[in-house]
Amino acid sequence: MSKSKPKNKVVLRDETRIRVRFSEIDSMQVVWHGEYMRYFEDGREAFGRRYAGLSYADIAEAGFPAPVVEASLQYKRPLRINDTAVVEVSYLDSEAAKICFEYVIRRESDGEVVATGSTTQVFVDRNYELQLLQPEFY
Amino acid sequence: MSKSKPKNKVVLRDETRIRVRFSEIDSMQVVWHGEYMRYFEDGREAFGRRYAGLSYADIAEAGFPAPVVEASLQYKRPLRINDTAVVEVSYLDSEAAKICFEYVIRRESDGEVVATGSTTQVFVDRNYELQLLQPEFY
Amino acid sequence: MSKSKPKNKVVLRDETRIRVRFSEIDSMQVVWHGEYMRYFEDGREAFGRRYAGLSYADIAEAGFPAPVVEASLQYKRPLRINDTAVVEVSYLDSEAAKICFEYVIRRESDGEVVATGSTTQVFVDRNYELQLLQPEFY
Amino acid sequence: MSKSKPKNKVVLRDETRIRVRFSEIDSMQVVWHGEYMRYFEDGREAFGRRYAGLSYADIAEAGFPAPVVEASLQYKRPLRINDTAVVEVSYLDSEAAKICFEYVIRRESDGEVVATGSTTQVFVDRNYELQLLQPEFY
Repeated sequence: MSKSKPKNKVVLRDETRIRVRFSEIDSMQVVWHGEYMRYFEDGREAFGRRYAGLSYADIAEAGFPAPVVEASLQYKRPLRINDTAVVEVSYLDSEAAKICFEYVIRRESDGEVVATGSTTQVFVDRNYELQLLQPEFY
Repeated sequence: MSKSKPKNKVVLRDETRIRVRFSEIDSMQVVWHGEYMRYFEDGREAFGRRYAGLSYADIAEAGFPAPVVEASLQYKRPLRINDTAVVEVSYLDSEAAKICFEYVIRRESDGEVVATGSTTQVFVDRNYELQLLQPEFY
Repeated sequence: MSKSKPKNKVVLRDETRIRVRFSEIDSMQVVWHGEYMRYFEDGREAFGRRYAGLSYADIAEAGFPAPVVEASLQYKRPLRINDTAVVEVSYLDSEAAKICFEYVIRRESDGEVVATGSTTQVFVDRNYELQLLQPEFY
Repeated sequence: MSKSKPKNKVVLRDETRIRVRFSEIDSMQVVWHGEYMRYFEDGREAFGRRYAGLSYADIAEAGFPAPVVEASLQYKRPLRINDTAVVEVSYLDSEAAKICFEYVIRRESDGEVVATGSTTQVFVDRNYELQLLQPEFY
């Protein structure tokens, strides 16, 4: 469906494990769908630590925050209380000022895909409301 | 970009106001992007209360949870600590077992669009992992 | 340890209403206990807006963040999905550099007390790790 | 009020490591104080997995949820973006129907204590609003 990153090549890949927390489980006994944005971010952070210089801290300290400007999530199966999620993060080759990641989240116990998704970030300056609208970032 | 709901007609619309909370602000001094999933849900919940019988509680009590199976978010401008968000929720006419919403979030002070997005939910039974994969829901 | 509110007089009082969100409900079908820290903060924020100049934004802009250094919570009854919480916040008269609040959270529908609590904040400078340990703040 | 842990003996102890997440950092550039309730719970969960039969899942499946009825937190120093927290959880010997834990959170890099706290849980039946008020649980 959301064909938002057409044919970019995967350049780098990383994987991180997240144990489901009690506080993430909703009243339907599954991980609340909004938590997956945090799982994606956990994956990006682990990726940033591995490929040094790309972590939030590094980027922010350098004076260039990179806010998420687009995200898509597809939910395939639920995660439950005793599950561990394995988040695979792929960094895609993309145009200059964009940072594009794709995600595949699997349940560790059986390897089943529970969710997929993508995010796009752009570099902005500290006064970032204006920069966000500059065409060269899109 | 994410052209995931092509030409469905808007059937019902509602609006809800959300005051930004301190705990939602991230280290960049803006609402953390993951919070918008909660804003969307707040909008759906308000919608459900207005058009009775569609709230989470009603649906869950009836034995038919309706998990989100797809979501997309586009971020246009940041929200900050003293802002109030106005979430406009549109219920789209769609095929049988799907529930499709579109969202426009505006900053109350100046009416600027800060984010847009969409979600798709499907009806499942209590044993919902299997139902989620049945073709008739896609 | 935390016998922190001996006989301080209540100086100011405010009340704020919070509708329970779906994402706050845990797998036991009640508001997750950790959310009450957010309810307390919502109460403080509303208090700060009413008694101008005490909001987080004001305080932070003035260069004096006031982190919470102590909190206590007593849970009496659960809050559920269709409940609205009424948070009563009382500002206590206390020594110089401390800000002490007490909280009573009631269920709006029947007025029952669902939780009580207290927080203590101290003023620190921007480099606040050191200030936090200075004796004059304790 | 909350002098709830007079001289109970520590019976069991466990330790768990938590890497600070970007989404946990507030606009003051430190972990938001409310997140520590989650760190405590992470510690309890790890404890429950180690000393089998005490995890949330086990307890809930057995039909005896054990909600937190009291919590206290003392904040000593802030945690920041690249920190890892080490949560030490001590299970205290206490009266029949109570579960009492104490917590010490240290910064992994330098071993400094960043926070301490305690929680008390009680066993209730599935219809737990009533049980919560029975005197034998207090």
